[in-house]
Amino acid sequence: MITQINPVGSMDLLSQLEVDRLKQTSTSELYRLFRNCCLAVLNVGAQTDNSREILDSHKSFDINVLRRERGIKLELLNPPAEAFVDGALIRGIQEHLFSVLRDILYVENQYHNNRLINLTSSTHVTHVVFDILRNARAIHSQADPNMIVCWGGHSIGEKEFLYTRSVGYQLGLRELNIVTGCGPGAMEGPMKGAAIGHAQQRQRHCRYLGLTEPSIIAAEPPNPIVNELVIMPDIEKRLEAFVRLGHGVIIFPGGVGTAEELLYLLGILLHPKNAEEPLPVVLTGPQSSAEYFNQIDQFVADTLGEEARSRYEIIIDDPVAVARYISDKTQDVRQHRKALGDAYHFNWSLHIEPEFQLPFEPSHDCMAELNLHHNQSSAALASALRKAFSGIVAGNVKEAGIKAIERNGPFVLHGEKELMTRLDKLLKAFIAQGRMKLPGSEYHPCYTVQT
Amino acid sequence: MITQINPVGSMDLLSQLEVDRLKQTSTSELYRLFRNCCLAVLNVGAQTDNSREILDSHKSFDINVLRRERGIKLELLNPPAEAFVDGALIRGIQEHLFSVLRDILYVENQYHNNRLINLTSSTHVTHVVFDILRNARAIHSQADPNMIVCWGGHSIGEKEFLYTRSVGYQLGLRELNIVTGCGPGAMEGPMKGAAIGHAQQRQRHCRYLGLTEPSIIAAEPPNPIVNELVIMPDIEKRLEAFVRLGHGVIIFPGGVGTAEELLYLLGILLHPKNAEEPLPVVLTGPQSSAEYFNQIDQFVADTLGEEARSRYEIIIDDPVAVARYISDKTQDVRQHRKALGDAYHFNWSLHIEPEFQLPFEPSHDCMAELNLHHNQSSAALASALRKAFSGIVAGNVKEAGIKAIERNGPFVLHGEKELMTRLDKLLKAFIAQGRMKLPGSEYHPCYTVQT
Amino acid sequence: MITQINPVGSMDLLSQLEVDRLKQTSTSELYRLFRNCCLAVLNVGAQTDNSREILDSHKSFDINVLRRERGIKLELLNPPAEAFVDGALIRGIQEHLFSVLRDILYVENQYHNNRLINLTSSTHVTHVVFDILRNARAIHSQADPNMIVCWGGHSIGEKEFLYTRSVGYQLGLRELNIVTGCGPGAMEGPMKGAAIGHAQQRQRHCRYLGLTEPSIIAAEPPNPIVNELVIMPDIEKRLEAFVRLGHGVIIFPGGVGTAEELLYLLGILLHPKNAEEPLPVVLTGPQSSAEYFNQIDQFVADTLGEEARSRYEIIIDDPVAVARYISDKTQDVRQHRKALGDAYHFNWSLHIEPEFQLPFEPSHDCMAELNLHHNQSSAALASALRKAFSGIVAGNVKEAGIKAIERNGPFVLHGEKELMTRLDKLLKAFIAQGRMKLPGSEYHPCYTVQT
Amino acid sequence: MITQINPVGSMDLLSQLEVDRLKQTSTSELYRLFRNCCLAVLNVGAQTDNSREILDSHKSFDINVLRRERGIKLELLNPPAEAFVDGALIRGIQEHLFSVLRDILYVENQYHNNRLINLTSSTHVTHVVFDILRNARAIHSQADPNMIVCWGGHSIGEKEFLYTRSVGYQLGLRELNIVTGCGPGAMEGPMKGAAIGHAQQRQRHCRYLGLTEPSIIAAEPPNPIVNELVIMPDIEKRLEAFVRLGHGVIIFPGGVGTAEELLYLLGILLHPKNAEEPLPVVLTGPQSSAEYFNQIDQFVADTLGEEARSRYEIIIDDPVAVARYISDKTQDVRQHRKALGDAYHFNWSLHIEPEFQLPFEPSHDCMAELNLHHNQSSAALASALRKAFSGIVAGNVKEAGIKAIERNGPFVLHGEKELMTRLDKLLKAFIAQGRMKLPGSEYHPCYTVQT
Repeated sequence: MITQINPVGSMDLLSQLEVDRLKQTSTSELYRLFRNCCLAVLNVGAQTDNSREILDSHKSFDINVLRRERGIKLELLNPPAEAFVDGALIRGIQEHLFSVLRDILYVENQYHNNRLINLTSSTHVTHVVFDILRNARAIHSQADPNMIVCWGGHSIGEKEFLYTRSVGYQLGLRELNIVTGCGPGAMEGPMKGAAIGHAQQRQRHCRYLGLTEPSIIAAEPPNPIVNELVIMPDIEKRLEAFVRLGHGVIIFPGGVGTAEELLYLLGILLHPKNAEEPLPVVLTGPQSSAEYFNQIDQFVADTLGEEARSRYEIIIDDPVAVARYISDKTQDVRQHRKALGDAYHFNWSLHIEPEFQLPFEPSHDCMAELNLHHNQSSAALASALRKAFSGIVAGNVKEAGIKAIERNGPFVLHGEKELMTRLDKLLKAFIAQGRMKLPGSEYHPCYTVQT
Repeated sequence: MITQINPVGSMDLLSQLEVDRLKQTSTSELYRLFRNCCLAVLNVGAQTDNSREILDSHKSFDINVLRRERGIKLELLNPPAEAFVDGALIRGIQEHLFSVLRDILYVENQYHNNRLINLTSSTHVTHVVFDILRNARAIHSQADPNMIVCWGGHSIGEKEFLYTRSVGYQLGLRELNIVTGCGPGAMEGPMKGAAIGHAQQRQRHCRYLGLTEPSIIAAEPPNPIVNELVIMPDIEKRLEAFVRLGHGVIIFPGGVGTAEELLYLLGILLHPKNAEEPLPVVLTGPQSSAEYFNQIDQFVADTLGEEARSRYEIIIDDPVAVARYISDKTQDVRQHRKALGDAYHFNWSLHIEPEFQLPFEPSHDCMAELNLHHNQSSAALASALRKAFSGIVAGNVKEAGIKAIERNGPFVLHGEKELMTRLDKLLKAFIAQGRMKLPGSEYHPCYTVQT
Repeated sequence: MITQINPVGSMDLLSQLEVDRLKQTSTSELYRLFRNCCLAVLNVGAQTDNSREILDSHKSFDINVLRRERGIKLELLNPPAEAFVDGALIRGIQEHLFSVLRDILYVENQYHNNRLINLTSSTHVTHVVFDILRNARAIHSQADPNMIVCWGGHSIGEKEFLYTRSVGYQLGLRELNIVTGCGPGAMEGPMKGAAIGHAQQRQRHCRYLGLTEPSIIAAEPPNPIVNELVIMPDIEKRLEAFVRLGHGVIIFPGGVGTAEELLYLLGILLHPKNAEEPLPVVLTGPQSSAEYFNQIDQFVADTLGEEARSRYEIIIDDPVAVARYISDKTQDVRQHRKALGDAYHFNWSLHIEPEFQLPFEPSHDCMAELNLHHNQSSAALASALRKAFSGIVAGNVKEAGIKAIERNGPFVLHGEKELMTRLDKLLKAFIAQGRMKLPGSEYHPCYTVQT
Repeated sequence: MITQINPVGSMDLLSQLEVDRLKQTSTSELYRLFRNCCLAVLNVGAQTDNSREILDSHKSFDINVLRRERGIKLELLNPPAEAFVDGALIRGIQEHLFSVLRDILYVENQYHNNRLINLTSSTHVTHVVFDILRNARAIHSQADPNMIVCWGGHSIGEKEFLYTRSVGYQLGLRELNIVTGCGPGAMEGPMKGAAIGHAQQRQRHCRYLGLTEPSIIAAEPPNPIVNELVIMPDIEKRLEAFVRLGHGVIIFPGGVGTAEELLYLLGILLHPKNAEEPLPVVLTGPQSSAEYFNQIDQFVADTLGEEARSRYEIIIDDPVAVARYISDKTQDVRQHRKALGDAYHFNWSLHIEPEFQLPFEPSHDCMAELNLHHNQSSAALASALRKAFSGIVAGNVKEAGIKAIERNGPFVLHGEKELMTRLDKLLKAFIAQGRMKLPGSEYHPCYTVQT
């Protein structure tokens, strides 16, 4: 089956040089990256979160860039059927394909071999994050502070899903926009809810921004509600994009990915330079999730201490209260930025240490060497813990991670006994609650905790 | 509590004469009509469908038109709280208030005392229906045939509601628009579903058109998803608006109102001049509603015969099939109109007899005099039956009808024995299934069937 | 030659009843009015201002309304060639045709036989003026006070024309909009100049509003720059539209029509109720026109007195000063309206006496009976003088007026000796300066002044 | 005098890194380039075309980039007064400032130190031209072939200026867009005329594209009608942008710059690979310019031969014929591109030899070494001649060129005797006709022709 797809947005304009670079050749790394991200986008309805499985089951899929009188077209060979309605590609997915094209070409053109950019400089990394978002028009200078980050698991139960939708509806009624990791579950629910709230408020230009990166996109394909998709080059730049774009953060129940996000956030907020940063953070879920948040809260208290706890609110089973709290606090964010002369659309003044910016590649060695002890600042410990969780996410759902586990067995995590016990307990609770993987598959841990 | 509301749309422009006419005076019928419709619109969250109850419980509500430098404002005194989020009126409802203002003023200015218009002429009535819709910008000449009428009960169960939403989602994915009677239940579900489908298709200018009339609006307040609201002067013009605007009709489970709509539609389609009319009609619901449609289908067969049955399809528990069928058939509608040179946006060539156009006031006498016998054309019998159901709707939920029943006891329906038995059986089934009124109240029939 | 024209704006939606009313029948007055106005609009390039000549020389022109799937079309038979570029109708003219259709149908539908409206009531007349403008979307409630009326002759010299364009350019640079009588000469120059100024300021939604009426439109066909055209029913409602819409008035050199406009304006401003009205009025022209304004100013001083002179400024040969003065004074208009609570978009509080509102039909009798004496208020004298000029305009260029003069000889004006002498002198100056008619024809006075 | 300017377009978003690069430091070449281009843009009304004079007379001018909550602002110190109306910067000029910022930053970020790009590769140069235009949104993939290049002198007489405006008006009526070098004279007239034609056709999104480069912008400041301004890095990329964007070329009377453009164009069109290229070229002017075109035509015949002459039409004193010819021929362009599968928006298939792409720096040595003989292909001779003219332009109006002439005396041109005689004759005619510099200054030749 062959389909030709018209471009949307401004991506109909490619130069001959660019088209040539995207040609399918046995050696083209750029082509492989582009093809795999497009496949992930097209695979939206699939019931698996195993990136490798997805790639393996669509080996005949191909994508070509064609030049035409009115710009380019994309040619799809053997695309997954779920992306089509009565033979026509869903337009939201069509847009996502061109977002993939845009971001992958831009990073290649701009940062491959650019001697002006030094990716170990904190200022330069932040410039790159900004520049990619700007190129994707994900930064709106005239907007008020209204971007709410929603984090949470892609594998959650019906009750939790409906709860995320209710919260989204209340956010939408308050004309707040949503940015998530753009997969299913807690990343989709708030957007669906907000869509109804926005419709009732007749809000135009609503934003359902999905931030992803090439290694996770297959496991968490963007829902078609996502109307702005940005593919950041790696998980660290994706996380930096979240915290610099967002004016509030809501954390729904989730698994290790969500824990990674929370620890990343706390690690940054615990830095003394960010002591005055007014970013509101709410942990919330339905009544049935109360115990889950107790466990998280206890783990934070035990590992990072009371100061870390003071950086978030836990609100159980009350979507209106969540939305009202966040809505109120965005006014503080606005005041703070105004007083500082900082931009509303990008939090330049948030301080992020290089250890939160430099890409962490979760090899077996790196995982084994993580410093999981209290002999460091709580910010540094948060960083180490976030890397541990990041590695487990990779071992669970990312292509490279799954392969590494198959080859070398589970990651081994070492550390201070008490801390490791707490970590082990938390991870076991995630497994028991089915938060590691989508239902339907038995979970085989990709890690061992050595106490 | 006093709130001032800015206009939306073009209704910020009123002349001094018009403002004066809308002033609250003891004698102003126009003011009373305007005030009551606005109250109904504001009362959106209420859990009752008893128009009288609604009006009685908000006696302190008032609305004033104020003139300002930049046009007019509306001042609300003691409005229902449900219409507000954190103190701000939901914008969808704000728009509805100005739709009420627009339609009520227009009908008054245009048709009160206009000697050019003869409301007993079929051509003139159709002109009026068209003119009111045009003034409300509800007619889009450049659009393709894509307006799907969704009829069904305001009082339906959770399973049926979710089903209407699924059908709406599939319609939305096919870029079809929705027009309903704009209350809750089967009138709201398809719109909510379509909103998600439209969002995935990035459809702009989606239409969720609600057609209502002053005597029913309180019982069926428009959901805020409705983004175009038109208040037709009476039920007959409202029904004519549905069938001339729609390019397909889907009938979900409902009560007497839905039965009225089906009989109105069949009465028209059975007219020999409409024999070639390709309007698709689908009766659909979840598996649990299969029996309901059996009953309806049997009643139609028994009373109006096989020809009537041939004008609709029954599809059970298959939203994709419903949407695909309707979507395909709109192509026939397009071909038919093109061949005839008739407009896509308004079905001028559909023949409607005056008996379907002239307002039926369901007094006890009129109800008693209905000719419920087989001694007439099936179109005429359909007309009589539709009036019987129309009267029962009035007795159930409309202010004037409820008062009349309180004063004079139930309506009495006479007719041919066999026909009356079938009618009685159908009505009893509606009662048993809780389709007469919103749950929470015991239903006291407002009619007696004499066999 | 036959051309079919697609509608623009919302005029593609007509009911069957309306199409029938516009059918060409021997008796249809509405059709004749419509056809003649359309012919005038199409005749834009013609070098004559004799309405009768225009109508006579296009006897084979016809226009039909056709119904199509996507609304109506207009069919033109033997239209004037000047309206086309390489066979395609200029789109500005296409829009004007549909403006004609809109206004003529609206006035017919709304005010023919409407018992609610009493056209001898001042409030009702003002409502009608407002209602026609509103229906034509010529009233913008959200706009700031920026509508500048430009009056002046259709027959002016090159130097004067370039001057009107310079003033228009300076108005455009200050983001002021232009409203004129929409013919050539001083009605076209300011719009052309403003178009360049607006382009430099990147102003979108610039307004070049032309107000005309059926009896003058043939002599002063709207230039295609006019992007909003409104056909008012008669000269009095057209003049009322000017003064209620405008936030400043600039009067360029002109003939009797311009004198009519100035006297109408002074007549209103001299009413004691308008003493506080801050409307700025500037008389301006190039150095070569200084004497012309001296004559006018002297005539006003001699007939209406110093108070009348105080209502305008004369600025010679300084486009920047004119635009700056008008721009500054619109701020006073804004303050005044705000203080009064009056609308920016329509000057409701300006008091206009019925004698300025009721249509004046310049028959020979009416002209002869005009009270041209000082034995009355200056406002009343202004009214009488404006009628005298109005009659001369009709005798010069309007179809009915030209016919009446042919039949009965020139109008005879009687009055106080000194006043008649002054009037005679002014009119002779107009003739000497070639301001009565377009160049190329010798002017035969359509009046006699008896002293 | 200090003014702060809000951004327009998307240039309100700069990263900290970018703002720092634009900071005024004694060593910042980027800052100097930015400041000088901005000064040129602001200097629009100036009556000189001597770049050095302009820069010298505004030494106190400064420009700073400031960061604010809603993005950046520009701060202007002591800007030229001509750019302001009643204290407010003309918005067209405001946009131009941000165009300067956009293009200068983009070229710096993208091509300074980018190892992927090789500026001696023809494919890479063309990619750069495309990329800069794309980044400036000057390439519209959905548009029909309608971009008409208008070349001609910045110093032309009133009659010639009015003629360029008439041609522009006729182009505008045919909905063709204009691209010029964006200075005064023949670069401004067609845009002003087209603006009126476009207004009559109600064309939205009209394009008045100005292509310039840093060394010429001061001498030819963009008129505010220019609504898209692109600063290409050098004259060769600017010329390539013209010929790849344009679908037709009109050449009005001009001086050496215009001659350079004509020779560049002929040099390319004479290449055998471009033999089938259907680009229409018209040389046109009023009757009084007939002799001028005779001289040019003769020069081309004598130097490049009959084939070169066959690539253009000369049309004298007939704006309608010019516009109709160009309009018709764009249909051939469309067919040709469609047949080839080439883009409408960028002429990829036009072959351009590196000698037309590589920057020519007109030093005294380079000028002296130009091969001005017939011992080469006519394309190569055209290239050499175009460089000779390019150097004279630099010596006349560009800052670096003027300085070089002051230091070293006039350029010396050597070559074949007959050819040099013809060249000398042509240049003398330009001097005699006042086409070398703006009037008001005596012209001192910056070259000597040695025969």
